[in-house]
Amino acid sequence: MLDSRKFRVGILGASGYTGADLVRLLIAHPHVEIVLMTGERKAGKPIGEVFPHLAGYDLPDLIALEEVEWPAVELDAVFCALPHATSQEVIKGLLHATNHSLLDEMIVETAGDLADAIKGDVKVIDLSADFRLRNTETYAEWYGRTHTAPEIQPKAVYGLPEFYRDAVREAYLVACPGCYPTAALLALVPLLKAGKIRADDILIDAKSGVSGAGRSLKENNLFVEIAEAMHPYGVGAHRHMPEIEQELAVAAGQDLTISFTPHLVPMNRGELETIYAKLSPGQTVSDVKEILEQTYRDEPFVTVLRGADMPATRMVRGSNHCVLNVFADRIPGRVIIVSAIDNLVKGSSGQAIQNMNLMLGIDEKTGLMQVPMFP
Amino acid sequence: MLDSRKFRVGILGASGYTGADLVRLLIAHPHVEIVLMTGERKAGKPIGEVFPHLAGYDLPDLIALEEVEWPAVELDAVFCALPHATSQEVIKGLLHATNHSLLDEMIVETAGDLADAIKGDVKVIDLSADFRLRNTETYAEWYGRTHTAPEIQPKAVYGLPEFYRDAVREAYLVACPGCYPTAALLALVPLLKAGKIRADDILIDAKSGVSGAGRSLKENNLFVEIAEAMHPYGVGAHRHMPEIEQELAVAAGQDLTISFTPHLVPMNRGELETIYAKLSPGQTVSDVKEILEQTYRDEPFVTVLRGADMPATRMVRGSNHCVLNVFADRIPGRVIIVSAIDNLVKGSSGQAIQNMNLMLGIDEKTGLMQVPMFP
Amino acid sequence: MLDSRKFRVGILGASGYTGADLVRLLIAHPHVEIVLMTGERKAGKPIGEVFPHLAGYDLPDLIALEEVEWPAVELDAVFCALPHATSQEVIKGLLHATNHSLLDEMIVETAGDLADAIKGDVKVIDLSADFRLRNTETYAEWYGRTHTAPEIQPKAVYGLPEFYRDAVREAYLVACPGCYPTAALLALVPLLKAGKIRADDILIDAKSGVSGAGRSLKENNLFVEIAEAMHPYGVGAHRHMPEIEQELAVAAGQDLTISFTPHLVPMNRGELETIYAKLSPGQTVSDVKEILEQTYRDEPFVTVLRGADMPATRMVRGSNHCVLNVFADRIPGRVIIVSAIDNLVKGSSGQAIQNMNLMLGIDEKTGLMQVPMFP
Amino acid sequence: MLDSRKFRVGILGASGYTGADLVRLLIAHPHVEIVLMTGERKAGKPIGEVFPHLAGYDLPDLIALEEVEWPAVELDAVFCALPHATSQEVIKGLLHATNHSLLDEMIVETAGDLADAIKGDVKVIDLSADFRLRNTETYAEWYGRTHTAPEIQPKAVYGLPEFYRDAVREAYLVACPGCYPTAALLALVPLLKAGKIRADDILIDAKSGVSGAGRSLKENNLFVEIAEAMHPYGVGAHRHMPEIEQELAVAAGQDLTISFTPHLVPMNRGELETIYAKLSPGQTVSDVKEILEQTYRDEPFVTVLRGADMPATRMVRGSNHCVLNVFADRIPGRVIIVSAIDNLVKGSSGQAIQNMNLMLGIDEKTGLMQVPMFP
Repeated sequence: MLDSRKFRVGILGASGYTGADLVRLLIAHPHVEIVLMTGERKAGKPIGEVFPHLAGYDLPDLIALEEVEWPAVELDAVFCALPHATSQEVIKGLLHATNHSLLDEMIVETAGDLADAIKGDVKVIDLSADFRLRNTETYAEWYGRTHTAPEIQPKAVYGLPEFYRDAVREAYLVACPGCYPTAALLALVPLLKAGKIRADDILIDAKSGVSGAGRSLKENNLFVEIAEAMHPYGVGAHRHMPEIEQELAVAAGQDLTISFTPHLVPMNRGELETIYAKLSPGQTVSDVKEILEQTYRDEPFVTVLRGADMPATRMVRGSNHCVLNVFADRIPGRVIIVSAIDNLVKGSSGQAIQNMNLMLGIDEKTGLMQVPMFP
Repeated sequence: MLDSRKFRVGILGASGYTGADLVRLLIAHPHVEIVLMTGERKAGKPIGEVFPHLAGYDLPDLIALEEVEWPAVELDAVFCALPHATSQEVIKGLLHATNHSLLDEMIVETAGDLADAIKGDVKVIDLSADFRLRNTETYAEWYGRTHTAPEIQPKAVYGLPEFYRDAVREAYLVACPGCYPTAALLALVPLLKAGKIRADDILIDAKSGVSGAGRSLKENNLFVEIAEAMHPYGVGAHRHMPEIEQELAVAAGQDLTISFTPHLVPMNRGELETIYAKLSPGQTVSDVKEILEQTYRDEPFVTVLRGADMPATRMVRGSNHCVLNVFADRIPGRVIIVSAIDNLVKGSSGQAIQNMNLMLGIDEKTGLMQVPMFP
Repeated sequence: MLDSRKFRVGILGASGYTGADLVRLLIAHPHVEIVLMTGERKAGKPIGEVFPHLAGYDLPDLIALEEVEWPAVELDAVFCALPHATSQEVIKGLLHATNHSLLDEMIVETAGDLADAIKGDVKVIDLSADFRLRNTETYAEWYGRTHTAPEIQPKAVYGLPEFYRDAVREAYLVACPGCYPTAALLALVPLLKAGKIRADDILIDAKSGVSGAGRSLKENNLFVEIAEAMHPYGVGAHRHMPEIEQELAVAAGQDLTISFTPHLVPMNRGELETIYAKLSPGQTVSDVKEILEQTYRDEPFVTVLRGADMPATRMVRGSNHCVLNVFADRIPGRVIIVSAIDNLVKGSSGQAIQNMNLMLGIDEKTGLMQVPMFP
Repeated sequence: MLDSRKFRVGILGASGYTGADLVRLLIAHPHVEIVLMTGERKAGKPIGEVFPHLAGYDLPDLIALEEVEWPAVELDAVFCALPHATSQEVIKGLLHATNHSLLDEMIVETAGDLADAIKGDVKVIDLSADFRLRNTETYAEWYGRTHTAPEIQPKAVYGLPEFYRDAVREAYLVACPGCYPTAALLALVPLLKAGKIRADDILIDAKSGVSGAGRSLKENNLFVEIAEAMHPYGVGAHRHMPEIEQELAVAAGQDLTISFTPHLVPMNRGELETIYAKLSPGQTVSDVKEILEQTYRDEPFVTVLRGADMPATRMVRGSNHCVLNVFADRIPGRVIIVSAIDNLVKGSSGQAIQNMNLMLGIDEKTGLMQVPMFP
């Protein structure tokens, strides 16, 4: 499927941290070429002015979104790293502007069959929350606004390749999971599918570095507010919750409600979730670990650690890996699962590229085998 | 009770971080004078060589423990900031060396009555774990060694003043709580006492700064290992667990088993616990908050925050305060309590001084009203 | 001069980090009472909402500047922690509103004699740059705007108590030095006065924590931009340069030009300057050290370290101290002086209170003897 | 020169941070295979136990140095990341054990001619200080011990490829520069060679992250000692000084003495040097910048920034790049050069691999084109 030509890719919203990490990873990707980058406030500037560490590479200048000439730019794939709400508008616009086959009403039922027919259309990888929630009413409830592209939503595939790999391969629109959902779902989905844990008593205590909050100018993101300190936020109200519940419900075959409490930790990158669950009757901690080991035996980016080795964010800094392990709780019948990722890579840009690879028919691991950076 | 004379106090083990914070706080205490400091490896040195920030104060040089001439030094109070196991040996030794009334077999039953009789004996405030566990078999199990002063153990008071204030006032030996237990017990004891939450489903996800690990030379404590990273440790095995269970059992009136998972966070000071509990039948989140508010209304060092204000370690940096708040969990019938302290102050040295104040008949708040330092 | 009544003090601009540290220190000050705090964007809020670590103290709510009823509030002293340019307007306004004796044209020549006459007028301690530069043309050049209160400028005393103590005692308007100038001048003024170093070859390499940049929402102040990184800024262009030169010129008795390069370091507090100078003919490194030792022998807040002890910011964290030491350079005839302060205390709020103490006739050290906080 | 076979490389001392970064970079190198790793205290362990972020790769277990069977292991290249003093002993031993042609007395004069003759001998890349100083008496003076392999010293090439590229290509023993010298020499050597600055007035104020101090258990390397703080160290006494002077003397064509003051900054990686120099008569700041631009125009790893863009460590985090820029000082006739590298990459492991590439006849950039990681 690969010829010597490189795939032409674009990044909408390249001036945030997620965009920067997309650029970092795509520069090193052997089969793609970045031909378009947008950035509203920074339009007209070279990316090296916005992110000095990206100076010196052969990259296009940032342009404003409205300047993009959609058909003319001839992208094979486009990453949408825009804020939610904006994202749905922009994606809807580009689908129409390129007369995208995804607009065909029938396509959702027959994607597999029509794949050839629509070949040539741009593949859209959305990193925002806009197409993650299948139920647009849930979207409206949590994001405080009506979804403006509900007709497109059903055509989006939830881009967690470990569980939706085949669908992603056929997809033209992938909604990349949030960072917290990625770490949580990799830990929990196999267990619920296999009935190892109960669906009604899942507590996720999550800790994240600050880059997840983006480059926006908020007092809460200032160095002084965060360094030498930590605190929870959004208790019972974080928008990643319905997303986690949606996917866990699929795995469990039943609706469920989780407890999810994120914390902000003074570090740039890294996300760790300590997950407390109740074993299903008759199940043991070893059963839980075995299911995870089976599930991820051949997965390139998920590792179940041996023995009592402890997942730590420094094991995955800058890499697309997730490390997991399972521990007995002291309370009988309970189990603790620890999951660590780099929020900007497996939790965002790396996973987006993993999806792109699948959508473009490239080996899934291409450009994503960075060894973690420690120190 | 106070005359113009200052109380003479000593610090055994002044060369660790706990010792340093004791010195910091005692220098500013208007009614005490530090007349003795020991430090094994650093014996013979001025404290300013060991801790340059403490240079320039009028303080005695560090001496070795075995050089202390117990009766001659005529202490009113002594802080024991030695490692566990060492602590019990040293305290036993000093009690014998000073022919301390606490060795009187009868004293445990009649402490109150005998208080006058033994007046003049040194008050011992132990910051180690050695006298915290009432059951010396539990001690042996968790600390991997037989307790060598079991006859003294029953005479120790657990030094959490908010719950044991009267006993501390009469005590000659106080075992200061560990940092994790302090944050946990202030949140949970009133709730179990009042029957607001169930005793069989308490999960404590704890996060701590690194100073709690002490100044010992371990790879895990190196800057590079900790900065820009985080991870859990001692899952299901941390020695603060039996201590928390002991005190919660007293409050609940029944034995119980908790889940407790500590995490190391890249900051010097600060400890935050996110506690997940199940409401007792018929109880609400408001009931929980009300009990905490009632309990701590007049407590100088514990604050229940208003509304949805979020406890954060930066609110208590360098101060002896604990801040608490209560949140509804999304899982019906569950509640989340967040508790933050400075692990070196309310979690260690500050609380030790709070106990000393009570034992010496000084106003409990004396020398402990530092405003938190932020930034 | 002290009666049992507490002095009434106000803080204009209490919602920045400098304001917060003023509040922290003034709460613990035994002879003052904060009766006024202003904050524009946060007007109407309790300070505890703006700075949660300051909740729970008996403090007035923030009000807008224009709501202050100047004569009615009856302040003994007022701190002005407003941005430059704003500061001169506000101070001019409050002098007029209170019909302040400082407006008397003659007062500048005869301040000492008139001190009694104007007793009762509010003492103004300005923490901005507005009254630091005696030459308002220099001000205009470096701050890019004409000074709007040039008639008041001559009446301001430069508030570095170690060199202007007597003038501060008599002053009604004190311009507190910038943080970088404080660390530099304490190191250099005595050497230039004594002719120990040459005036034409002074290089100051300065490093500062981030709180000095204030709580303003700039990309450069975000956690992610600063953590795990460092860089110089404002090379050859920092506004503290003319201020340093002004005071060094006074000491040297001649105009001079310095090299000054500040760097941003990933820490909240702390400032360290490594100063490279050339010895005057015939002078030695020992001579340099001796002059500093003589100068500061009786100063409560400046310490010259012994031997080769190295100044470090952790020695002065949270305290009003400056630590200095002197080292031989390898280049013959050169000397290195290292100076460390806490930029928010001796570099800002602490020094402001030191000035207030002098202006109000209180012991200079009052409320400023905090032991440094380490860890 | 490359066939499909991968070069066999070994790492002596793989259990330190430098070793870890060698492994990180070599795993991603397309033409080499790590077949040997030693680590004394950790001998017998898989590298993944020593550095969990390196688990899961196909790497040999650590063995003790004395277990290495030198001829049998058949290395093409070996990295020596051992402590100084140890390094010279080990390298001497391996040369003898492999009957290395480098021991031939004549080789030093005729290396170029004999290159073919000794083909097949292992290439040695030493990351320690042992072969950096050409004068073994200087070595003895600064390292406090007599050099035990003075006969090998003359055969070592100083491995700064930007200045010694051809010699490195022919070399069998390369002494990689220290991190501080790398950043300093890239900035200064071209200027001295071209006579743009004076040789007698060079001051280097250096700031480094903590990984440079290694993984050794010293109190000074503990998180708590370093976080939220900074300080200079080794003023006038750091061992990188004679190394910098040696190479600057070559460039200047005369002996010289520099001023060099390193500082420890709370970050893992990164090194920044602010260099103060005096222009030679008739030279301007533009001349200085022009020389650097000319020198590095075609260098893959050194970038002179445009305009007033400021070098910052975050521009080179994890990458083999050095960024430089030049600024006018306010003192007439002086110039400031700022140089930033990642101390573990261009300052150590990356540069070592750059040397290896040259020695093995591979493209110099191979395996070293990582995009810097920010955040």
